[in-house]
Amino acid sequence: MAEASSIRPQSAASIEQWDFEADVVVAGYGIAGVSASIEAARAGADVLVLERTSGWGGAAALAGGFIYLGGGTPLQQALGFEDSPANMKSFMMAALGPGADEEKITDYCEGSVEHYNWLVDNGVPFKESFYGQPGWETPFDDGLMYSGGENSAPFNTIATPAPRGHVPQMSGKRTGEKGGGFMLMKPLIETAESLGVRAEYDMRVQRLVVDGDRVVGIIAKQYGKEVAVRARTGVVLATGSFAYNEAMIQSYAPRLIGRPGAAIEEHDGKAIQMAQALGADLAHMDATEVAFFGDPQLMIRGILVNGRGQRYVNEDTYPGRIGQETLLRNENQAYLIIDEASYEEGCAADSSTPFFRFQPKWVAETVEELESDMGLPEGTLQSTVEVYNRHAARGEDPVLGKKKEWVKPIGSPVAALDLRNFTAGFTLGGLRTSINSEVIHVSGEPIPGLFAAGRCTAGVCAGGYASGTSLGDGSFYGRRAGISAAKG
Amino acid sequence: MAEASSIRPQSAASIEQWDFEADVVVAGYGIAGVSASIEAARAGADVLVLERTSGWGGAAALAGGFIYLGGGTPLQQALGFEDSPANMKSFMMAALGPGADEEKITDYCEGSVEHYNWLVDNGVPFKESFYGQPGWETPFDDGLMYSGGENSAPFNTIATPAPRGHVPQMSGKRTGEKGGGFMLMKPLIETAESLGVRAEYDMRVQRLVVDGDRVVGIIAKQYGKEVAVRARTGVVLATGSFAYNEAMIQSYAPRLIGRPGAAIEEHDGKAIQMAQALGADLAHMDATEVAFFGDPQLMIRGILVNGRGQRYVNEDTYPGRIGQETLLRNENQAYLIIDEASYEEGCAADSSTPFFRFQPKWVAETVEELESDMGLPEGTLQSTVEVYNRHAARGEDPVLGKKKEWVKPIGSPVAALDLRNFTAGFTLGGLRTSINSEVIHVSGEPIPGLFAAGRCTAGVCAGGYASGTSLGDGSFYGRRAGISAAKG
Repeated sequence: MAEASSIRPQSAASIEQWDFEADVVVAGYGIAGVSASIEAARAGADVLVLERTSGWGGAAALAGGFIYLGGGTPLQQALGFEDSPANMKSFMMAALGPGADEEKITDYCEGSVEHYNWLVDNGVPFKESFYGQPGWETPFDDGLMYSGGENSAPFNTIATPAPRGHVPQMSGKRTGEKGGGFMLMKPLIETAESLGVRAEYDMRVQRLVVDGDRVVGIIAKQYGKEVAVRARTGVVLATGSFAYNEAMIQSYAPRLIGRPGAAIEEHDGKAIQMAQALGADLAHMDATEVAFFGDPQLMIRGILVNGRGQRYVNEDTYPGRIGQETLLRNENQAYLIIDEASYEEGCAADSSTPFFRFQPKWVAETVEELESDMGLPEGTLQSTVEVYNRHAARGEDPVLGKKKEWVKPIGSPVAALDLRNFTAGFTLGGLRTSINSEVIHVSGEPIPGLFAAGRCTAGVCAGGYASGTSLGDGSFYGRRAGISAAKG
Repeated sequence: MAEASSIRPQSAASIEQWDFEADVVVAGYGIAGVSASIEAARAGADVLVLERTSGWGGAAALAGGFIYLGGGTPLQQALGFEDSPANMKSFMMAALGPGADEEKITDYCEGSVEHYNWLVDNGVPFKESFYGQPGWETPFDDGLMYSGGENSAPFNTIATPAPRGHVPQMSGKRTGEKGGGFMLMKPLIETAESLGVRAEYDMRVQRLVVDGDRVVGIIAKQYGKEVAVRARTGVVLATGSFAYNEAMIQSYAPRLIGRPGAAIEEHDGKAIQMAQALGADLAHMDATEVAFFGDPQLMIRGILVNGRGQRYVNEDTYPGRIGQETLLRNENQAYLIIDEASYEEGCAADSSTPFFRFQPKWVAETVEELESDMGLPEGTLQSTVEVYNRHAARGEDPVLGKKKEWVKPIGSPVAALDLRNFTAGFTLGGLRTSINSEVIHVSGEPIPGLFAAGRCTAGVCAGGYASGTSLGDGSFYGRRAGISAAKG
């Protein structure tokens, strides 16, 4: 109970001595924290970062590294893709909703080219190379890729397709060296250090310190001892998601129970609760990214069916969308039906996820046999394949709109991969923030002195997701948080 | 902004004069409020209810009146249905999750028989009569009905089916007189009045009054003037859902945007926000009841298909489950496919919802023609009907488990009813409360002096719903709130 109650804000009057002081105090040294630190330092602030682990990086450094950028970035232009802020907004509003924050998305799209340039100016390298294969990410060091289903149904008719997954250039990805997320974080950390940003490690934030309504500091535990950290102008919360807080997952996103993914254990939601204790408002707490452990190079060459043997998603879309449709709407039941020739073709293709290439669980000469072996009710899978093949013979998929180039009748022998319960995810909801990264009180007013960015906030995503939106809004609104916190 | 900031708690020291005083102050005179008032008064407290409208009743008085009770109530026993708290819990955990509050559901099931007796002792009449037809509610004055899909797949194999929708006996339902919700509220209000409970009307609650961490009163507006109401031992929040707060709907349950239902406009979520301003925790903010405007007597005799012509839910289940599956998982796209003979049979059947009996939009001699007229891709609806009929000829539905008695091949002529965008709903999430109806701070500790019940709290429902769980947990935990608030 003593531990629990430590989340409540503490009065500044009760602080006898500040152990650390800075103008801007940033909690968390992942993508949002480093972006905030750089901008706060450039605005003239003395910046101190409190990081819970023994080094910088957060979940970002372990991520694939996508940053969702568009509206006509130099990289998009160099590679021949047209885009505009309005086009980008049309896609994001359609793909990231319902309920997406239009003000934030508009702002994000309008600032996207400038944000790309900022990243480049701070040393983040993007190779002028486009990767056009189906996949979660590029297996090479390409700089640009579709990362949200922009070029597939239903979004390819809502907005002009443009790839927006910008990936920092990696070195030696296939040999297990550093990936895109690391290559994003490293130059930004170096930039922050060059600007005099200080960091204290092994600092677990506990609660906020307030003077009246204003946040003026933070209490943290360092090596088991509580320390008081004074923030002269502002505190920035940038501690990540609540994917590893079991109670919060049960309360807000119960379909993720037992399947946290693509986040780190430090993502315990504590900063969200510290701000809630001050009356901070929340948004989109049910929203989740959902990874799906099927290889896109195989999935796109077959058909995905649910537990009733029905197709439910176009197989050429963003695999994270397949994950959401599977976990959230189809009871986490999925099978990939694919003929032998397509399976072999898929296995021969380049893949960023060769470890997602499972052997078929069932193989048969006919779909009728396969259906029976899988235990599906008679006629269900047969009719699904029959309808698919009937249209595929004409190169069409009127049911789900898979692109012509991937539509081909399913032949024999035919196999099924068992992709049931093959999902994991992280949370997208959190503190409600303004476009200036102020943490918004439930009254609708900003909480003075308190700012936040990254996955402890509700960013550009509501229900949907696209790879790169987390590092995207984390860096974009991390910068804003730094600027706002330096002003105080 | 002045209006917005009025949600922040006010210090008791700033109150010059209390305009009203009581031991227990209850905000909202619906089912949770009246239940709290009765128990607080019986515990010896002087009770004052603040009601926003000009009369008691809330959403409850306008509702069908189901109270979800079981575990072997006298009414269940008299009508020959076996049930136990453990059996009831098995159903509720399966049907109301994922993420349902097991402690609360266990407590609720164990106390259910006592709660039934309490309602009867307080004058709520239940007629010893079971209504076994498909429907949202009984069209007559029967006292018991299935109200959550207990007797259909998948729940009929998880727990022994028992009807738990207890309905107060109505008078003249078909002639537009008072319904079950009114007949629930009226005797409870009379009981409260007989116990000396006072009520002030046209009282809009604004913010809580605190003395340190303890809630000691509430500020309300009466006829446009702010008044201070002192609560000597406790405040009970019982002001209903946030179904009519557009910003909260957008933040938490965006699929309900533009389709609030079965709640009243006063359900603006303000009490939730007032408690959040004190650091109150939330739960299940995305959970929603979803009503579906198709007549169960027709739906059960046909097959429901989504926008791809696929079946997606067993048509003999609780219609609220059909609503959730349609809105939340199938893009609000639904058609009812039914042959002429079944349509006529359904229209001849008793129905609680004759106004949901739409004319078919399309009629054809063959499913092939119907499919074409509806604009569905060739083969989709045909194969769905073919697979259904193949098994129906043997009285089986292995795809979705519709009960044998309702499974019959679809003949000719055949029609389709257009049930797209035929949903509305209310919210089920809200303040996190203990089984003693204490409002829980985000620290995990109760907020001293603050209690809540009803739809401003997260009750027994997480994702799922059964009719009667709102009036059920509203009354059950309303009572607890009254008892706890009287103790202080």
